[in-house]
Amino acid sequence: MQRVAVLTEPDNVVLEQREIPEPGPGQVQVAVRAVSVCGSDVHYYDHGRIGGFVMHAPLVLGHETSGVVSAVGSEVTTPAVGTRVAVEPQTECGRCAQCRQGRYHLCPDIAFFATPPVDGSFAEYVVVPAHRAHPIPDSLSDEAAALVEPLSVALHAATKAEIGPGTRVLVSGAGPVGLLCLQVALARGAASVVVTDVMALRREAAAEFGATATVDGNDHDTALASVGEVLGQADVVLECTGVQPAIDLAVAATAPAATVVLVGTGASVTLPLDLVQARELVVKGTFRYAHVYPAAIALAASGRIRLDAMITSHHPLEDAVGALLAARRDPLALKAVVHP
Amino acid sequence: MQRVAVLTEPDNVVLEQREIPEPGPGQVQVAVRAVSVCGSDVHYYDHGRIGGFVMHAPLVLGHETSGVVSAVGSEVTTPAVGTRVAVEPQTECGRCAQCRQGRYHLCPDIAFFATPPVDGSFAEYVVVPAHRAHPIPDSLSDEAAALVEPLSVALHAATKAEIGPGTRVLVSGAGPVGLLCLQVALARGAASVVVTDVMALRREAAAEFGATATVDGNDHDTALASVGEVLGQADVVLECTGVQPAIDLAVAATAPAATVVLVGTGASVTLPLDLVQARELVVKGTFRYAHVYPAAIALAASGRIRLDAMITSHHPLEDAVGALLAARRDPLALKAVVHP
Amino acid sequence: MQRVAVLTEPDNVVLEQREIPEPGPGQVQVAVRAVSVCGSDVHYYDHGRIGGFVMHAPLVLGHETSGVVSAVGSEVTTPAVGTRVAVEPQTECGRCAQCRQGRYHLCPDIAFFATPPVDGSFAEYVVVPAHRAHPIPDSLSDEAAALVEPLSVALHAATKAEIGPGTRVLVSGAGPVGLLCLQVALARGAASVVVTDVMALRREAAAEFGATATVDGNDHDTALASVGEVLGQADVVLECTGVQPAIDLAVAATAPAATVVLVGTGASVTLPLDLVQARELVVKGTFRYAHVYPAAIALAASGRIRLDAMITSHHPLEDAVGALLAARRDPLALKAVVHP
Amino acid sequence: MQRVAVLTEPDNVVLEQREIPEPGPGQVQVAVRAVSVCGSDVHYYDHGRIGGFVMHAPLVLGHETSGVVSAVGSEVTTPAVGTRVAVEPQTECGRCAQCRQGRYHLCPDIAFFATPPVDGSFAEYVVVPAHRAHPIPDSLSDEAAALVEPLSVALHAATKAEIGPGTRVLVSGAGPVGLLCLQVALARGAASVVVTDVMALRREAAAEFGATATVDGNDHDTALASVGEVLGQADVVLECTGVQPAIDLAVAATAPAATVVLVGTGASVTLPLDLVQARELVVKGTFRYAHVYPAAIALAASGRIRLDAMITSHHPLEDAVGALLAARRDPLALKAVVHP
Repeated sequence: MQRVAVLTEPDNVVLEQREIPEPGPGQVQVAVRAVSVCGSDVHYYDHGRIGGFVMHAPLVLGHETSGVVSAVGSEVTTPAVGTRVAVEPQTECGRCAQCRQGRYHLCPDIAFFATPPVDGSFAEYVVVPAHRAHPIPDSLSDEAAALVEPLSVALHAATKAEIGPGTRVLVSGAGPVGLLCLQVALARGAASVVVTDVMALRREAAAEFGATATVDGNDHDTALASVGEVLGQADVVLECTGVQPAIDLAVAATAPAATVVLVGTGASVTLPLDLVQARELVVKGTFRYAHVYPAAIALAASGRIRLDAMITSHHPLEDAVGALLAARRDPLALKAVVHP
Repeated sequence: MQRVAVLTEPDNVVLEQREIPEPGPGQVQVAVRAVSVCGSDVHYYDHGRIGGFVMHAPLVLGHETSGVVSAVGSEVTTPAVGTRVAVEPQTECGRCAQCRQGRYHLCPDIAFFATPPVDGSFAEYVVVPAHRAHPIPDSLSDEAAALVEPLSVALHAATKAEIGPGTRVLVSGAGPVGLLCLQVALARGAASVVVTDVMALRREAAAEFGATATVDGNDHDTALASVGEVLGQADVVLECTGVQPAIDLAVAATAPAATVVLVGTGASVTLPLDLVQARELVVKGTFRYAHVYPAAIALAASGRIRLDAMITSHHPLEDAVGALLAARRDPLALKAVVHP
Repeated sequence: MQRVAVLTEPDNVVLEQREIPEPGPGQVQVAVRAVSVCGSDVHYYDHGRIGGFVMHAPLVLGHETSGVVSAVGSEVTTPAVGTRVAVEPQTECGRCAQCRQGRYHLCPDIAFFATPPVDGSFAEYVVVPAHRAHPIPDSLSDEAAALVEPLSVALHAATKAEIGPGTRVLVSGAGPVGLLCLQVALARGAASVVVTDVMALRREAAAEFGATATVDGNDHDTALASVGEVLGQADVVLECTGVQPAIDLAVAATAPAATVVLVGTGASVTLPLDLVQARELVVKGTFRYAHVYPAAIALAASGRIRLDAMITSHHPLEDAVGALLAARRDPLALKAVVHP
Repeated sequence: MQRVAVLTEPDNVVLEQREIPEPGPGQVQVAVRAVSVCGSDVHYYDHGRIGGFVMHAPLVLGHETSGVVSAVGSEVTTPAVGTRVAVEPQTECGRCAQCRQGRYHLCPDIAFFATPPVDGSFAEYVVVPAHRAHPIPDSLSDEAAALVEPLSVALHAATKAEIGPGTRVLVSGAGPVGLLCLQVALARGAASVVVTDVMALRREAAAEFGATATVDGNDHDTALASVGEVLGQADVVLECTGVQPAIDLAVAATAPAATVVLVGTGASVTLPLDLVQARELVVKGTFRYAHVYPAAIALAASGRIRLDAMITSHHPLEDAVGALLAARRDPLALKAVVHP
């Protein structure tokens, strides 16, 4: 038996004893070492839903996961028991049109950790397909390996934006994902990466993580002028807030033929059609990631992304709620980690 | 002296005598033969403005233009006097970052016919850079040559959408541009091109121009189900209305990883962010076109686009107002042509 | 029991009685109706090998296949028994890096009909994965459905070349694949498609299938000048010969920034490095196709590709050798079809 | 009057007194501070030609240039006199199809420094279009600013290859351009960049500049196995030698769907057609660069590219020959710089 932290209803997480899942053919069992908390976990904790994804039964939260392979099912050649891994928290059907095209993250039957009705990793053990347990080098800590998940989100977004040397990048929002987008933009060679946020503490964090400049996003006109001064026009926007005023600012700051990647989530977004057309903007939605974990691990292992510096608190499984509420309680908090 | 039809203020077009413009170095003078009317001409006639483009002085309308080269300036080697041409109605600065990158249509100093303060072609003669007067073969009528302009809009949009055999295409809106987008999608090899419109007469026109099916867009849910039946999910949407309910329908009808090209104009557009992300949609603004005229002429000349069939009335320059109002007066009207 | 035509060694095909294969889970059994002959079949018949692919045991030739679903295995929901299908002759592993990326045709464990040691379709029945038996409409003949296979080769090549309206296309070689490339280029909107070949009869065939011009490739300098006259510079070359002098001509005829797609097979190709660089050419290898059958079927069904017109002889299974030798015996032969 | 080092014929450079060129409209005059030597300069010194580019008259060598704006012509708003600049050594016509498409480097009338009959920068003063004199920050030395030219070559190649995090990169050849390609690949986020060379000293240089591994290219089979061990298969090859055995190794080392960028120059290249096809390789020619200088300057200024470390000798204009022969005389030499 293992201990699992279960969200039974909004605002109520309880520890339960559950059977330890056994790996089937092609699967591995991972003893969980670190699970970092994502804003989506907090949102389920608060509301029991995110948009159309609704809890109808108790749900185990947690999807940013690392651990050690503790057992392997039949037909598994790699990774071996004892291998430290970052766990990619999605399992696709493998047979639909999206999977066959290589877009497994868009599989309509995708099972993703901590997305109803699929349980996540606030648990001592999880089972995943062997090819979703990605080996990590010794140089990556357990916590950093958990953060490979949001790093993959940022890397997927930056890849869609085709950032490279010479790209003038605007990162809208300096939360954890924004800070990772910032670091990935720099790692792809961008020399000018400006970050906007409405909170001074977050702008300070952005500066610490390498932003060439930060801009207070509170007043649209002032912010737009500031971006113009420190960046010029943005060739790429990585929009990490999902909030309309930030989107308005980001879109207004674009250069002709710019790409705006929508990373932050929300219900709807209103775009100035005349400007989208007059500049021939390309607006891209992003949904998680696909085929990114190995690159994210290599990038983190090369030292070009500072993941450990984003960890601001540690919690035992018993204190999953403390991890979920960490960001709310401490304005300096970036990433809380649960250690089952 | 020549006669010119001038919009002095909304709802008032007068014939004036003006000097015949002489071609400068690198320019040609074109004796105008046909000018087809665009919805933007009608919008200036009604409102004196389109969004941020505002008439502050009398304006000559008309930008879909064909004619015969009547004089050439110095340094012009081609086209020669007497050559029949389709006139690309834009002149770029040639020196800015956009021009140097090959995106001359995004030049901030672009001069475009019938866009304040630049006069258009409701006139007997116009002057343009020699490389914007594109020779046409005998097989193209004067009227068809004028329609190369909106055809270029459609071709530019379809190229951005990368339509090819196997692409399931949804054209949103069956006005003149929608009908051209339909024809271009077919000419690029698409086998399934479905057109939506709220007007039955327009849907009939779409069927006549080759739509594999048409769908009544009046009721969202019914229309969405109908598109699903006759098309499946759309890999590409060419949105030609700029109207929110049509955009809602078009976006809802997309396949994962689909591309939505925004051709229709308007002030703003609201997109369902959750859906844009869950499907990783790519939304592209389009602004006129660049480098497209020769391809549009070749496509029209090859007989794969029916341009003459879109002409529904002819008007002398004295009846420019009749041309502008033709679509309003006759629900079957597609394209009115002014012959200066 | 069924009859199967087996190549036991070069120049020797015998009819054998073999067990009728039963469909396993996810598979369908197809009663073969038409198998068109490919140059690769002839090459195995003559030499027992193609490059590194060597016959070490008797081999059933034939991979361009249509038929009717005659039985379905477990877990198959579609296509149903009685469905007419074009058979995509490749089965991938579904688990390797290439398969997961959507490039199943590059799967190192691909099993392809009539490629040693995998048997082909000169047989009364074959078994394939259900998703590789693509339903065809009534408007497609059995023979045309077999030709969907080489059409897929051409479509894959033209898609890689991004041919569209305005693209000046040079098809090098007017054999069956060249003629299909020609037709696909036209179907994608190209207005100028010039075909080169050293044989007059083949150039006549190209003209009949819609080439805007044909050029005798026998003398390099003359041919290059001719291409310049009738096409200008080629934006895209579809090289369908694999023969060095034809490749030399094709590369010499390119425009700056052109794309050369290598469709024809051979051992090696020598490229003029200075020209490849001075023009920044892009040279792309193609290997069969992936995800193309549905589009090829739709394109053929739409009437834009003339497949039946390419059939020049019919043979019973007993006369498989006659089909293999048809092209050798008749210079006007394009495609011979075996009807098991 | 100014002093200029002129190559009068192969193996003979003389100092001449010439008129100081005055800037015309839109041009600036640059007082040259540093000119680094390129292999092409040495090739002209030795042979008087490179392929089809042949000296028919005395030629001033040198095209990797930095300096200070010393005078400006009419119509020049920027850069101002006194601005330190890196000089992009090419002037396009601005009116041809290539220029209008944004590919000014492919302009058939391009004038490039030190390419017959255009003189280069082994001189005290040169004149260039204002937009080709790119301002540099104080953090860049004169020598580093000269090296922005070969850095642009490398950046252009790496951009064509779409290198990013996760890309397994093979750099073929560890000469100056290879070392710059290596650094650019790392700066674009690649975590694994392996360099091959036949010379041990060059492999050591590659290791010093950050190669994750180096491989001795002398024996094909051994080298191929080594690349497999330290890199796996290459997703991207940057081929910087132009030499057939190196190309053979590089192509053999590719992964399916890999891109091979041909940077090194030569007369012809032979590719294994079967392998190019079976892997669907994409082979891209590169010719100099376009639109790259600002990005190269920003990248160098950000400290991610070590340019000064590549300078191995300094020479006055009187010793231009010493600079040209430096690499021949010293196997450790990378870049010699002439200071007029």
